[in-house]
Amino acid sequence: MSEVALGVDIGGTRTKLAFVERSGRRLAQGTFRTDAHDSADGYVEALVEAVRSARRELGDGHTVRGVGIGAPNANHFRGTVEDAPNLRWKGVVPLARLVSEALGLPTVLTNDANAAALGEMRYGNARGLSDFVLVTLGTGLGSGFVSGGKLLYGHDGLAGELGHVIVEPGGRLCGCGRRGCLERYASVTGLVLTVRELLASGRPSSLGELDADGLGGRAVDAAARAGDELALEAFARTGQRLGLALANAVAITSPEAVVLFGGLVAAGERILEPTRQAFEENLLATWRGRVRLLLSGLDDAEAGVLGAAALSWREHEGG
Amino acid sequence: MSEVALGVDIGGTRTKLAFVERSGRRLAQGTFRTDAHDSADGYVEALVEAVRSARRELGDGHTVRGVGIGAPNANHFRGTVEDAPNLRWKGVVPLARLVSEALGLPTVLTNDANAAALGEMRYGNARGLSDFVLVTLGTGLGSGFVSGGKLLYGHDGLAGELGHVIVEPGGRLCGCGRRGCLERYASVTGLVLTVRELLASGRPSSLGELDADGLGGRAVDAAARAGDELALEAFARTGQRLGLALANAVAITSPEAVVLFGGLVAAGERILEPTRQAFEENLLATWRGRVRLLLSGLDDAEAGVLGAAALSWREHEGG
Repeated sequence: MSEVALGVDIGGTRTKLAFVERSGRRLAQGTFRTDAHDSADGYVEALVEAVRSARRELGDGHTVRGVGIGAPNANHFRGTVEDAPNLRWKGVVPLARLVSEALGLPTVLTNDANAAALGEMRYGNARGLSDFVLVTLGTGLGSGFVSGGKLLYGHDGLAGELGHVIVEPGGRLCGCGRRGCLERYASVTGLVLTVRELLASGRPSSLGELDADGLGGRAVDAAARAGDELALEAFARTGQRLGLALANAVAITSPEAVVLFGGLVAAGERILEPTRQAFEENLLATWRGRVRLLLSGLDDAEAGVLGAAALSWREHEGG
Repeated sequence: MSEVALGVDIGGTRTKLAFVERSGRRLAQGTFRTDAHDSADGYVEALVEAVRSARRELGDGHTVRGVGIGAPNANHFRGTVEDAPNLRWKGVVPLARLVSEALGLPTVLTNDANAAALGEMRYGNARGLSDFVLVTLGTGLGSGFVSGGKLLYGHDGLAGELGHVIVEPGGRLCGCGRRGCLERYASVTGLVLTVRELLASGRPSSLGELDADGLGGRAVDAAARAGDELALEAFARTGQRLGLALANAVAITSPEAVVLFGGLVAAGERILEPTRQAFEENLLATWRGRVRLLLSGLDDAEAGVLGAAALSWREHEGG
């Protein structure tokens, strides 16, 4: 009899799910479009259908111990997804309860960056670490802080909003309505905004020939690989912002490592080198050379479901 | 039979100690000059003498459960005071072990801001709170983060260095060797530095007549009370820096309250009003109007020993 947990990774476009053994082995999986459903009820119906299908693929001889869900704007304490700008269902949705009732399984929920941190701690490059920060660098910047082996949730379950630390008062307008948030500088979106600013200042670059749709993270990375100075400068500025912000976060939580994950990290040393340099420069002497800057040990494609499954295993084990 | 803990508050100039009941009642106390001793051994001898004297004052019928020490640059995990710039004994001093051996009592140590946070949680305005930040605003800026009812120590016991978050890259030189640390702006020292900058820019003020020795936090506060515009502007700028930094810290740890303590707080609304305004302005909408900005409920003179005693009680109770 094998035990498995169901990991569900809800993204704005797609939902992925997998039955995962304690070891991290995925035995059966599925996926469907999140954005095909404009109500939570409709979404849960589609989820149940996808789970049934994966359950058939899984076959007999397995006990499903529980469900873990990673979702944007999720509140672990309340089991809710709250006013998620990237999901079509609006308001406060009691998703953990809805899924638990629909599947008849204990269900826990946390936000996607927290789930990624748990996945990294159980299956990735944060194995054996009890104090680290996971930072996801994609469209935005998400973070999960693990302290003393536990996720830092704060009083309301909403801690870890490193992306909304203000690093430039009066700076770039953020989706949150304020200005100067870190995620408007240190993310794929931030990188592209920096390129646009540099282009607007009249600096020459092959990127100037692209239209708005073509000017994304991949185009900037391709230009940087080809030696485009403006693209390289944009990576350098992005890394400087990120490195300083990470050093400041270390001053508060003193982790042994910072683990970087997400689309921006695909640029490898182009983003890591300036980040590492600014990180070391801005650390207090106590921590200089002692806090590791690591890349995620998980594939982008699997990290979400593994993190969600890790959440379920943790709950099952009483962590 | 009454139970007491011995609280020891080590400051750069003076050490204070008191036998404290669980309730926070101080039954006997003492004080001696920290800076009269240039070795840890000599210091511990003086401490033992002061403890004996207080013990006599305490009288019979009391069991001493343990010793708690709050000290600058203290490492809770290692029980050490490490390279404290404001103490005359240098290097890494295993103070918890030295005191435990000298007094024959279980002894625990933490840094002064962490001790203040524990004191506030047990005896002050953070009673009943499990997620808060205590910020001491004196010569420097210290902080203790409590999360889920426990001090946030990080992997090495050194978490909570909010004073060394860099808020102005390339800014004012800090004692840590870097530039732009928060404590060079948001502290009594920071306030005075801001006054000096404003005076140097040619702004008129009654403070311009004071020599360097006379220009301290009290003089600035007196001038502000008398309506001096430059002094008021210095408080406003100090509060803006502090409020933004606190809002950014909230984004990471999501506390239910921030408790302010120390010399700068004596200025009351002159510092609180601009701090509160910047704090609210810079909070994510989720937290706006929901995270309380509180003043310490403890007197400056007693907070240190109460915090140190709280540390000992906590250890004794297995917290």
